[in-house]
Amino acid sequence: MTDEQYMQQALNEAQKAFDAGEVPVGAIIVMNDKVIARAHNQVELLNDSTAHAEILALTTAFNFLGSKYLPKATLYVTLEPCLMCCGALYWSKMGRIVYGANDEKNGYKKTTGDKSPFHPKTEVLNGILKEDCAGLMKDFFKARR
Amino acid sequence: MTDEQYMQQALNEAQKAFDAGEVPVGAIIVMNDKVIARAHNQVELLNDSTAHAEILALTTAFNFLGSKYLPKATLYVTLEPCLMCCGALYWSKMGRIVYGANDEKNGYKKTTGDKSPFHPKTEVLNGILKEDCAGLMKDFFKARR
Repeated sequence: MTDEQYMQQALNEAQKAFDAGEVPVGAIIVMNDKVIARAHNQVELLNDSTAHAEILALTTAFNFLGSKYLPKATLYVTLEPCLMCCGALYWSKMGRIVYGANDEKNGYKKTTGDKSPFHPKTEVLNGILKEDCAGLMKDFFKARR
Repeated sequence: MTDEQYMQQALNEAQKAFDAGEVPVGAIIVMNDKVIARAHNQVELLNDSTAHAEILALTTAFNFLGSKYLPKATLYVTLEPCLMCCGALYWSKMGRIVYGANDEKNGYKKTTGDKSPFHPKTEVLNGILKEDCAGLMKDFFKARR
């Protein structure tokens, strides 16, 4: 499967968040060409401001593998991770991170600037299906205004 | 109760982590002079590299209050929070954060420099019982070498 195909699966997760009235962000974690975790933002449902898609996906992957590190896995997420999620991904030693749209308001780049918050061995790629990922966010906030 | 007395309670939590073979960090959350959450680092026990004391305390507090924001609460933690925990505290809108020892290796200041990762309304104080907080960390890593 290609990065685009996996990102489409993360987008499907984001759509579930959208349908549930949650900020539409979705994430999946892939290892050996197999999806080992899927999650979408559940801040409202869980009444927990830290229940971001990435965090929920990480917890699922740790439990599934019985391992607290994921150096051979790839996380696909529809939106640029926030500082909290970057920190969590750092601790997980995630092998690769692929994100879709930029998040100028809450994305990590706003705070870290030139310093990468990720593990030195983590590969980062962005912009995959970014129009679709950003479009879902725009539709969500437009409908709420 | 004073900040020192509350920090002593966070230190008691850190001691529990120490005794369990976990990196000795402890946290409590206080609201209206009442402790509403206590937690210690459980990375090894939960096999989850993100199970830091602050994150576990936040989850407890959200559940206890049925609220995803904590603007009237204070978090006491024995060590300078990492980037992930700062991000989580940002989302929680924590009213006040009091930490003990600095963490030059993994503390947030290493990455954020002059930019505060916290919510603009969050008050931050550090250095409370810092010798005791740092001493427990030193003892832990000395015993492991």
